[in-house]
Amino acid sequence: MGSQNSTISATPTAENSKQPRTERGRKTLRKLLDAATVEFGENGFHEASISGITRRAGVALGSFYTYFDSKDAIFRALVVDMSNSVKQAARDAITEPMSALDIERQALRGFLEFASEHKEIYRIIDEAEFVDPASYRTHYETIAARINDRLQTGARNGEFRPDLSEAHAWALMGMNVFLGLRYSIWNRDGDSLDMVSDAAHSLLAKGIATARQ
Amino acid sequence: MGSQNSTISATPTAENSKQPRTERGRKTLRKLLDAATVEFGENGFHEASISGITRRAGVALGSFYTYFDSKDAIFRALVVDMSNSVKQAARDAITEPMSALDIERQALRGFLEFASEHKEIYRIIDEAEFVDPASYRTHYETIAARINDRLQTGARNGEFRPDLSEAHAWALMGMNVFLGLRYSIWNRDGDSLDMVSDAAHSLLAKGIATARQ
Repeated sequence: MGSQNSTISATPTAENSKQPRTERGRKTLRKLLDAATVEFGENGFHEASISGITRRAGVALGSFYTYFDSKDAIFRALVVDMSNSVKQAARDAITEPMSALDIERQALRGFLEFASEHKEIYRIIDEAEFVDPASYRTHYETIAARINDRLQTGARNGEFRPDLSEAHAWALMGMNVFLGLRYSIWNRDGDSLDMVSDAAHSLLAKGIATARQ
Repeated sequence: MGSQNSTISATPTAENSKQPRTERGRKTLRKLLDAATVEFGENGFHEASISGITRRAGVALGSFYTYFDSKDAIFRALVVDMSNSVKQAARDAITEPMSALDIERQALRGFLEFASEHKEIYRIIDEAEFVDPASYRTHYETIAARINDRLQTGARNGEFRPDLSEAHAWALMGMNVFLGLRYSIWNRDGDSLDMVSDAAHSLLAKGIATARQ
């Protein structure tokens, strides 16, 4: 991940976009989504414009409507696209075989790197809470479900406690989101992402108490 | 907390408000902040209006300017007021003497109840990311610093591991924020807040692994 190009790399399979059938069409769609990331990230949803997106993408204004019906539609598609990118970043960081705890560490590490390279993701996802609440909720419910799947797999393997629930998955997701906000987006202060993922790992591995209480 | 009245109960000491000197003035300021909570919570910052706030507060429009210079000013004051309310809710839930782990559990429990009764808090704090980024950041940095203080106190007492860092504090805060979003704001599905705080407590007490790894 770390040294890759700075555009979001997931394949666009976003809802609300009219799926292109040609390779050229897919490239144009990708350009529009990448340009929308910058336009929405810099200006916010309300100030952002379709012409701003097409100008940044180097695409004719009319072509926009080949792919999306409206500014709302490309915003929704972008949230789904970012969800997919986050998933992919976490997956890319996991190389089997790995213990269940190491998978969590690497998934966080992958996310932290992704967020460091795509700082606009927080602004866009967070703005979805206002612009498109259903997308916002789906984004987090989908991630939590994925984390819960990993927890249940770990529990079945005997690596994780058998009593882990959906609440634990939301707790882990919240940890990861706020560590990203603090260390990938706001200020690293020379703190390394390894320090951050090690801190989270130690919390998951043994809690914060000196002895099991 | 649970059965108290439904207005935010912290004493207004918000910046950006012109501090009232009389009891009557303090009551009017409190009415304005409570009305602003509803107005911003229902309409969002951009659609909200000063006249909407004064109408809800039952206060003359001109009186607003005795306390605030602008819609921005009361929004900023409201974020600070909500920060104080969150702090107070967590504090009220902590009754000494209590183990360091129980303090964390109770602080979360108090926050979850507070958020259940003041569902508008997420929308308002989250909108601050766009309307007033400095307030948004201060809100979370202040809470994280408070959690870190508790972690360091627990470590000095020998109850918490000696190697806990600011990253652990941000991890705990993120846990709490997302558990609140899921279980206090969105959907409890019959899940009790005790189940939620027990899940977080078990994570902090012993991690998620079957044995220390």
